[in-house]
Amino acid sequence: MSNSIGTNVVLTLFGESHGEEIGAVLDGMPAGIEVSDEMIAAQLSKRRPQDATETARVEPDEFRIVSGVFNGRTTGAPICVIIENSKQRSGDYEKNLGIARPGHADYVAHIKYGGYEDWRGGGHFSGRITAGIVAVGAIAIKALELKGIRIGTHILSCGGVNDSSFCIGGRMTSLALADDIESINSKLFPVLDDSVADKMRSAILEAKMSGDSVGGSVQTAICGLPAGVGEPWFDSVESVLSKALFSIGGIKGVEFGAGFGFASMRGSQANDQWRIDDAGKAFTTTNNNGGINGGISNGMPIVFNCAVKPTPSISQKQMSVNLLTGENTELSLVGRHDPAIIRRICIVVTSLSAIVMCDMLGHLYGSNYLAAED
Amino acid sequence: MSNSIGTNVVLTLFGESHGEEIGAVLDGMPAGIEVSDEMIAAQLSKRRPQDATETARVEPDEFRIVSGVFNGRTTGAPICVIIENSKQRSGDYEKNLGIARPGHADYVAHIKYGGYEDWRGGGHFSGRITAGIVAVGAIAIKALELKGIRIGTHILSCGGVNDSSFCIGGRMTSLALADDIESINSKLFPVLDDSVADKMRSAILEAKMSGDSVGGSVQTAICGLPAGVGEPWFDSVESVLSKALFSIGGIKGVEFGAGFGFASMRGSQANDQWRIDDAGKAFTTTNNNGGINGGISNGMPIVFNCAVKPTPSISQKQMSVNLLTGENTELSLVGRHDPAIIRRICIVVTSLSAIVMCDMLGHLYGSNYLAAED
Amino acid sequence: MSNSIGTNVVLTLFGESHGEEIGAVLDGMPAGIEVSDEMIAAQLSKRRPQDATETARVEPDEFRIVSGVFNGRTTGAPICVIIENSKQRSGDYEKNLGIARPGHADYVAHIKYGGYEDWRGGGHFSGRITAGIVAVGAIAIKALELKGIRIGTHILSCGGVNDSSFCIGGRMTSLALADDIESINSKLFPVLDDSVADKMRSAILEAKMSGDSVGGSVQTAICGLPAGVGEPWFDSVESVLSKALFSIGGIKGVEFGAGFGFASMRGSQANDQWRIDDAGKAFTTTNNNGGINGGISNGMPIVFNCAVKPTPSISQKQMSVNLLTGENTELSLVGRHDPAIIRRICIVVTSLSAIVMCDMLGHLYGSNYLAAED
Amino acid sequence: MSNSIGTNVVLTLFGESHGEEIGAVLDGMPAGIEVSDEMIAAQLSKRRPQDATETARVEPDEFRIVSGVFNGRTTGAPICVIIENSKQRSGDYEKNLGIARPGHADYVAHIKYGGYEDWRGGGHFSGRITAGIVAVGAIAIKALELKGIRIGTHILSCGGVNDSSFCIGGRMTSLALADDIESINSKLFPVLDDSVADKMRSAILEAKMSGDSVGGSVQTAICGLPAGVGEPWFDSVESVLSKALFSIGGIKGVEFGAGFGFASMRGSQANDQWRIDDAGKAFTTTNNNGGINGGISNGMPIVFNCAVKPTPSISQKQMSVNLLTGENTELSLVGRHDPAIIRRICIVVTSLSAIVMCDMLGHLYGSNYLAAED
Repeated sequence: MSNSIGTNVVLTLFGESHGEEIGAVLDGMPAGIEVSDEMIAAQLSKRRPQDATETARVEPDEFRIVSGVFNGRTTGAPICVIIENSKQRSGDYEKNLGIARPGHADYVAHIKYGGYEDWRGGGHFSGRITAGIVAVGAIAIKALELKGIRIGTHILSCGGVNDSSFCIGGRMTSLALADDIESINSKLFPVLDDSVADKMRSAILEAKMSGDSVGGSVQTAICGLPAGVGEPWFDSVESVLSKALFSIGGIKGVEFGAGFGFASMRGSQANDQWRIDDAGKAFTTTNNNGGINGGISNGMPIVFNCAVKPTPSISQKQMSVNLLTGENTELSLVGRHDPAIIRRICIVVTSLSAIVMCDMLGHLYGSNYLAAED
Repeated sequence: MSNSIGTNVVLTLFGESHGEEIGAVLDGMPAGIEVSDEMIAAQLSKRRPQDATETARVEPDEFRIVSGVFNGRTTGAPICVIIENSKQRSGDYEKNLGIARPGHADYVAHIKYGGYEDWRGGGHFSGRITAGIVAVGAIAIKALELKGIRIGTHILSCGGVNDSSFCIGGRMTSLALADDIESINSKLFPVLDDSVADKMRSAILEAKMSGDSVGGSVQTAICGLPAGVGEPWFDSVESVLSKALFSIGGIKGVEFGAGFGFASMRGSQANDQWRIDDAGKAFTTTNNNGGINGGISNGMPIVFNCAVKPTPSISQKQMSVNLLTGENTELSLVGRHDPAIIRRICIVVTSLSAIVMCDMLGHLYGSNYLAAED
Repeated sequence: MSNSIGTNVVLTLFGESHGEEIGAVLDGMPAGIEVSDEMIAAQLSKRRPQDATETARVEPDEFRIVSGVFNGRTTGAPICVIIENSKQRSGDYEKNLGIARPGHADYVAHIKYGGYEDWRGGGHFSGRITAGIVAVGAIAIKALELKGIRIGTHILSCGGVNDSSFCIGGRMTSLALADDIESINSKLFPVLDDSVADKMRSAILEAKMSGDSVGGSVQTAICGLPAGVGEPWFDSVESVLSKALFSIGGIKGVEFGAGFGFASMRGSQANDQWRIDDAGKAFTTTNNNGGINGGISNGMPIVFNCAVKPTPSISQKQMSVNLLTGENTELSLVGRHDPAIIRRICIVVTSLSAIVMCDMLGHLYGSNYLAAED
Repeated sequence: MSNSIGTNVVLTLFGESHGEEIGAVLDGMPAGIEVSDEMIAAQLSKRRPQDATETARVEPDEFRIVSGVFNGRTTGAPICVIIENSKQRSGDYEKNLGIARPGHADYVAHIKYGGYEDWRGGGHFSGRITAGIVAVGAIAIKALELKGIRIGTHILSCGGVNDSSFCIGGRMTSLALADDIESINSKLFPVLDDSVADKMRSAILEAKMSGDSVGGSVQTAICGLPAGVGEPWFDSVESVLSKALFSIGGIKGVEFGAGFGFASMRGSQANDQWRIDDAGKAFTTTNNNGGINGGISNGMPIVFNCAVKPTPSISQKQMSVNLLTGENTELSLVGRHDPAIIRRICIVVTSLSAIVMCDMLGHLYGSNYLAAED
């Protein structure tokens, strides 16, 4: 099932960096969700490189909805979106033919597929494939909105510069977080504290100058999710989300709520204590557990962080091996690379998480839960 | 599929903390693996509480292999192991009937199951269920050994005390790591640097004295795994392992290799550069990627860390709600609780990871890969 | 996933014919369903051999509910039921050690598991394992009843003697069928037309006298299922049911509605034409499609037939091979065998189909659909 | 997972009868299989209507391989093939807008998707979608050939005319069947006994004259499959194949080997007795079990039959309901319909079965089994 994920809502990806088209199929979404080209285009634009801090390969992302939408609404049939590749320049890659780029999948692909892999620009391992996630993710985000659920991702840290956190103080409540989410979703450079944006950009450009790249981390919040989503053990919210998140190239760590911060806490600090609000609804006074107890949503916002490794494509000289000759060699990458993918990854994380949430809501509410509302 | 995981090798869990028996079914293991009661008992003993730093509920873990083993070897049929509960003391829990313990699943279980859940000792959410993972995990560990693959987990940090890391310097190679793994697997308190053991134990006892608990993190290494295990995108090694790991109660973060440390690195530091060794085999000079590129094992040791939150059961007074009356209340837990589960969780992480690896090897090599060796 | 089936409701089987215990795990059932030992015992009794037409191995089927039931109701956690084997007599099998019984799985098991299989009485391939299906199936049948859905199976043909069909004339409506189902579920020998029972029994005994066995077919109806269950293409009602049904040893054919009878029909006869009843509800005037169009239930009764091959264990001399020596040999089976399993298979088909329906209803209505009713 | 099937090899379908394109994704095929446009085109041509016995909507089936093939070979990445629709004529359907065609999925789609379904030409339920199965199935058939496995399907009966059977006498051996398969795969009208072809065509045309359609049955054989494919219980060869086969619109029955013929057999006739051939290989002297014992292939040819109902689109007047008004109405379909789909369904059954076999071989041999051969 390597290129499909989900049980109620199933996402399938296909395509390669230098093929003519890539695409995604989203199956199992309820019928009746309004879909427009504009809403998909708007999401894809967030993923598109915007300035010198990102790659010079700017794809126009021409797409078409091949199936599953009729008269402007989902039909219940699988939704396929195809996106054209138009800016592929394989020549950049042919120069280094057979040389395993450090930090990339070239070596493992060569071993796994016996040399038959499409090596151009990382082939099917390329981040380009995430455009399909973003395209169909737009529909998942819309479906969540119809249930009052909001989701957003901001850059938590990049190049040593930190943004504020969703978990601190007054920000923690669903109400406050919903505003934050709306705010970051409207920003081209999604940070909570705008004063850090320029510092982050500077750190990226500085790395770029020296032929290098930077890593970072992103933070996501989901507000409005009812208590009871997720299952004990293997379909815990953490399990299902992390399986999806770790599929995104470059993500090497996932933590929920206080995450690795728990390691140095005591139980008396870590436990989120319960209270009843004026409306008789239970809430916790802190949200260290990121809205999840025993693998199941507890009604508080779901909050998680992803660690993003520095883009492996750098122009500095690196040691490597030639897969065709089996000999040591050196490599200096030229071409159009991102000195940081941290901004672009935000919408990918949001989109994929939204798809996962629709999958889990489908399990809880049934396969046509939106229709059930009417 | 909440209580089953895997495709080629499928683990299914059942049971409750205060039922008479719990168990696990492991399906899809190759035929012909030698299995003895002793090897299962030895693993269960590692999970059993050992001294004042852990719970006073010490289960003898009487077990029996119900199916799937014949004449001392696996048959290819599903292996069911049943373990008796004998030390359950529901009285401790009846005192707090209906009060949602902070940090536990009581609240979400009540919402999700409409009050029909078995609330005694956390019911099916209890850590007690992990005994089943350890019992059948012994067979998975054995299967990996037959393929030259070793796996072990040590306490990386606990109560503010840190152990050495698998990732530093000379430790990093498969050969060195294999020795480390053998060493920690033979220790009752698995740390690399024995001098930190007493400090960790002291930190735990100190927390216990003040009616509190401590968190920590554990680190796992898998040596001898061939390159090519895992799939691009949704069945990446990280995806499949993290889905399993996050199902373990108390684990709130998972990171591979440098993990969240990547956030402050540059590409030139982060990239693991390739070399060819004297035998013509490729290796990387660092292992920041934890043995995984593009979701696929690259032949280096797989290394990952799990964040473990402090045990939520503490005797300090906490705020909570009464699920039956819907009112605010307070709670002071008495009973037999672990001030830290960090040591006991090591063998659970090892066992579950071994099962996941067998699942992935089955995919790569085919369903009866051990027989194929002969 | 060979021993697990389902996505929302997952059934897992384990055990061998001559092990000490067998069992089943049913995961994903809604919380709150009343469960008693009596209701499980009643179903198991229908599967138990009753007279000279069936095997002399009569297991008392002592069972216990290991998990998932608390205070007499399902909890939402996986339900494990363990059943004891007490009448195994391996001696009967040791006589023919290594000889592949024609029509049985001995040969394929030997090839597949390299000689490590538990060969006693067919091991994990034994029909004995279906006792687990019947035990947990009792809970699925109960859950369906709570939604107004009834299910039953009768012997359609056996030893050349035919029963009436669910599909003929006045029997076809949901109302009439519900009565038929209640009637056959109360009979020890489930036929619609009682006059054929003795003829069938005579045919079985006659075959038994000559050291032979007989085949047959069974017919199942499900009434009260709403329209809209099932999915287009690969999760069609036919697909999901047939996958389950063909797992039952001895079932070699499955047909829905007119089934193979369609081959000689014309469209004008085959099409079920639509009408609106007085209450404004749509129905079809015939039910050739067995209640399913395009893979999805249409509100009419689901009707399907299963072909059951003659029990392969016969005492007549047969040609075979010795798996240990690789030589031709002959075989005359002694021991306790069923000259027909056609009666006993009815409750197995009903139970497994009920589990499948709960799986599909969970998909349509959501995971806790019974609670949602309140 | 309604539109995806498989675990090692996963097929995903998308598209609608009257959309601009339809397609299929085949994921998990081994790397290195030669793929050409010609081999796909050749298979699609077998599915295309050829004369007056079939629909007048003849699609040119212009297709392109979007992903997963590089330098003429599979890469191991998901293979997406997109096929254009160019002959859709929605006008034919608009005339009967809202009227549920008997035997079609119109009614269930309306109920299930709340009126949002694409109703034009059956939308996603249309047989048009099977073109995607045939396109990617060409690659599965090729993969099987590389392992010495041949597969083919012929018309067993149609309009009351019967062809010979794969199961009779000398035809039964793998060797003889392989020749038969080659023969029928080269015929435009695939029957074993050419003398029946004209009779079948006449029967179809006769039905067409009276505004009617005919049903039939098809028979498939798979030769060269090793013993040991399939799993006990829920992943039996019968289970996995039937799940796929029943997803094809119009298939209402599936039987293996003697199938429903078993119902009137005795064990002494039904059992396939074992012998050792001169080369020391075991075989059975009959093949009533269709090459499968206990759910697992036994080395004999796999043989199964599918019942195909008459095409539901007929021009005779039928009773129906108007989904928009909820009232009784009548319907006389005009448009381009198949009086029989029996010939066209053969290649669909072959293609889908080939995909299922690749899925099962992947499980047995591992994910890159072709590479493993080298």
